[in-house]
Amino acid sequence: MPKLLPRLILYTCVFAAFSQVKFPAAPPNVVILFADDLGYGDLGCQGSPVIRTPNLDRMAAEGLRFTDFYSAAEVCTPSRAALLTGRYPIRSGMCETPGARRVLFANSKGGLPQSEVTLARALKARGYATAHVGKWHLGIHEGGRPLDHGFDSSFGLPYSNDMDGRPGLPKGSSGSPNPPQDGWNVALMRDGKVVEQPADQTTLTRRYTEEAVKFITEKKGGPFFLYLAHTFPHVPMFASPQFKGRSRAGIYGDAVEELDWSTGQILDALRKEGLAGNTLVFFTSDNGPWLIMGSQGGSAGLLKDGKGSTWEGGMRVPGIAWMPGRVQPGVTSAVAHMMDLFPTALALAGVERPAGVTLDGVDLAPMLFAGRSLPERPFFYYRGDQIFACRLGEWKAHFKTQTGYGQPKAEAHERPLLFHLGLDPSEKRDMAATHPDVIARIQDAVRTHQAAMTPGAPQLQ
Amino acid sequence: MPKLLPRLILYTCVFAAFSQVKFPAAPPNVVILFADDLGYGDLGCQGSPVIRTPNLDRMAAEGLRFTDFYSAAEVCTPSRAALLTGRYPIRSGMCETPGARRVLFANSKGGLPQSEVTLARALKARGYATAHVGKWHLGIHEGGRPLDHGFDSSFGLPYSNDMDGRPGLPKGSSGSPNPPQDGWNVALMRDGKVVEQPADQTTLTRRYTEEAVKFITEKKGGPFFLYLAHTFPHVPMFASPQFKGRSRAGIYGDAVEELDWSTGQILDALRKEGLAGNTLVFFTSDNGPWLIMGSQGGSAGLLKDGKGSTWEGGMRVPGIAWMPGRVQPGVTSAVAHMMDLFPTALALAGVERPAGVTLDGVDLAPMLFAGRSLPERPFFYYRGDQIFACRLGEWKAHFKTQTGYGQPKAEAHERPLLFHLGLDPSEKRDMAATHPDVIARIQDAVRTHQAAMTPGAPQLQ
Repeated sequence: MPKLLPRLILYTCVFAAFSQVKFPAAPPNVVILFADDLGYGDLGCQGSPVIRTPNLDRMAAEGLRFTDFYSAAEVCTPSRAALLTGRYPIRSGMCETPGARRVLFANSKGGLPQSEVTLARALKARGYATAHVGKWHLGIHEGGRPLDHGFDSSFGLPYSNDMDGRPGLPKGSSGSPNPPQDGWNVALMRDGKVVEQPADQTTLTRRYTEEAVKFITEKKGGPFFLYLAHTFPHVPMFASPQFKGRSRAGIYGDAVEELDWSTGQILDALRKEGLAGNTLVFFTSDNGPWLIMGSQGGSAGLLKDGKGSTWEGGMRVPGIAWMPGRVQPGVTSAVAHMMDLFPTALALAGVERPAGVTLDGVDLAPMLFAGRSLPERPFFYYRGDQIFACRLGEWKAHFKTQTGYGQPKAEAHERPLLFHLGLDPSEKRDMAATHPDVIARIQDAVRTHQAAMTPGAPQLQ
Repeated sequence: MPKLLPRLILYTCVFAAFSQVKFPAAPPNVVILFADDLGYGDLGCQGSPVIRTPNLDRMAAEGLRFTDFYSAAEVCTPSRAALLTGRYPIRSGMCETPGARRVLFANSKGGLPQSEVTLARALKARGYATAHVGKWHLGIHEGGRPLDHGFDSSFGLPYSNDMDGRPGLPKGSSGSPNPPQDGWNVALMRDGKVVEQPADQTTLTRRYTEEAVKFITEKKGGPFFLYLAHTFPHVPMFASPQFKGRSRAGIYGDAVEELDWSTGQILDALRKEGLAGNTLVFFTSDNGPWLIMGSQGGSAGLLKDGKGSTWEGGMRVPGIAWMPGRVQPGVTSAVAHMMDLFPTALALAGVERPAGVTLDGVDLAPMLFAGRSLPERPFFYYRGDQIFACRLGEWKAHFKTQTGYGQPKAEAHERPLLFHLGLDPSEKRDMAATHPDVIARIQDAVRTHQAAMTPGAPQLQ
């Protein structure tokens, strides 16, 4: 106990200096639960009629559910870069640029640059134990791997589960309702070393969950940061025998219902260890549902389009914050996004923002814990290094559009399309003709943002 | 007290004979809350990002929410006939037939025939106090009015709020976001007599609610049956000053949020009178959202199409059963429909089914109160007197399709379209080519149903 005292005093002082919201002396733990390609409409509490998610529904009932929570990108790699750095992916170069690809592939050379400060590194510097469990997809070479970016430990896949297809794999296998178990050679790795190749994908959600619960149990003295980035429901779709064939929605539903089980296990572990009231858990998805996958793709509910698109279905995702007794339960329509989690976690931990680094989010703590409003701010829908759309308040202007399912080239709109997301959440009725003033305000916001933007060196060549 | 005893004994005996589910001696009250044109996706608990419905969400959390609950028709009049008779509208003649209209209009001569036994009449015969509050739309002439069909009292509009437009009303007024308050001459009636004309539509939801609460308070000795059929969110859209302009979704959202408030008032009144545990409340809608109304129409969420169509969005509606301590809370994907409410209410009340009358529903009580499964049974999607589609288990076959927004003529499908509503709730992927056996089974079910069908004399000429 005496040895803990200086640390407690330090945290208390630091915390008092950096946040208006009062916490006990022990800095809160942070857990991010991150699904892959889960659609806006794929949870019971988001209106799915076919997928049962009692654990996530309970998390939402006990916590704060966001109706308007955004991913920072419409595909995987840039979204993850944004989540962990708190910055639009263009700043780290972790997005499509002319001549580059949209995400990292198995043979890509690039990765998240060392110049970026991840949430893990920032929290680790404050004494947090940090664990990555699950998919990484931010680089497999030196400097870009989990242990290079502030994680004490890492257990999972280096990239998407459909990469590294084995020779002779028939085309379309990844989107099959019953994909071959040995179809992909992707490795399960621990701390940079292969422990199983090919990974038995039917066991991944279960093993990730066990790993996460073990970490929570071992580090219960806190503080800790757990980044659990699930492999599913990205294709090829697999589920444990206990879940396979159990949902109405086929293997996609089975996989999501297993993620729901996993979430229940994590929250139960936190409750059991007495950590529920001192751990901020946030559940979200990296982008919208992969609609071209048919019944192996999910649903964006009433939102238009899905993964790969800057229509709402591509980037608006489930968002649930949970910290019983602290986060005020309810539903909010405040516009927030995954880049807010970085400054929020730093504020909770009493950690100063990294010097000289532009962050694109805001601290959500005053809203989560005290019900305060967020400032109105523009949200930019990037596709690669280009701004395709921008939202300001309820209004969204599209400068370019491209569907996520096969439109070969983006369509530029000389007069931007304009939608009111309150009156028209499905983006059906263009109101540009009658609201040139709104478009002008949005264009101003884009200009201001772009004038101050310094893109990072491209990493996805 | 001694005077009550014979009645209690009678109910106990009747009840024991007609139901396997045990209830206390006092027969339960029945309350049906019926929205007009409310879409599948228009409640918070059904995934709406723009309409806040905390009271209905709480009702759902305390009760049983159906993911697959159906209206018996895609438009108003036949739906209401089916709800109150427990029969497909073709049996009462209250649906479109060749040369007839789709619903009753202000100048229609027809109405619900006296040969039909409504739920009100069946329950009234057992001593229930019965009240109709809100929209009727089953006839304005003798024999077809609320008091002719077993209701002790009636307060509301004789038909839809967009009928009886005043001379000079500009075209499209009913779908305006700000309709003229004096645009329609529709009468507010009490027990068949006009009490206000034109009705002040901004006050309707409030006044319906006050009337309903008054009935509950006065009849708390029970048993009672309350049929509260809201006028909204049918166009023209109005809301009280307390609700107007409050929602993100414009006047449509305002109107739905006022219905949500109303529901909270009803449930609070039941709680306050100590009746919550002995009153089955069921909330649903008459058909899907009227999509051609733009932002004055709602959303069917991920379901296809809306009002007027036999695609899922036209007929699958919210369905919530509530009876705290009796209805087992949860979410069910059992296929049920509004015609089940008639036999369910009769079973609860210990009332025999009317002799010689074919009912199209089943008693939901064993499922609601004891968690038992429902039998698999076909559901027929009628458009007027024709079966356009049929669902059996997860499979739905369309024999004809016609959108709810302007397709002038139905398209007949020589090979029916076939969708799996678990894998594909949005009806995107026709699987007919690979599942002829399923189509054959569904066609059998249709043939069996049609062979036994005796249509009633057409009422909507």
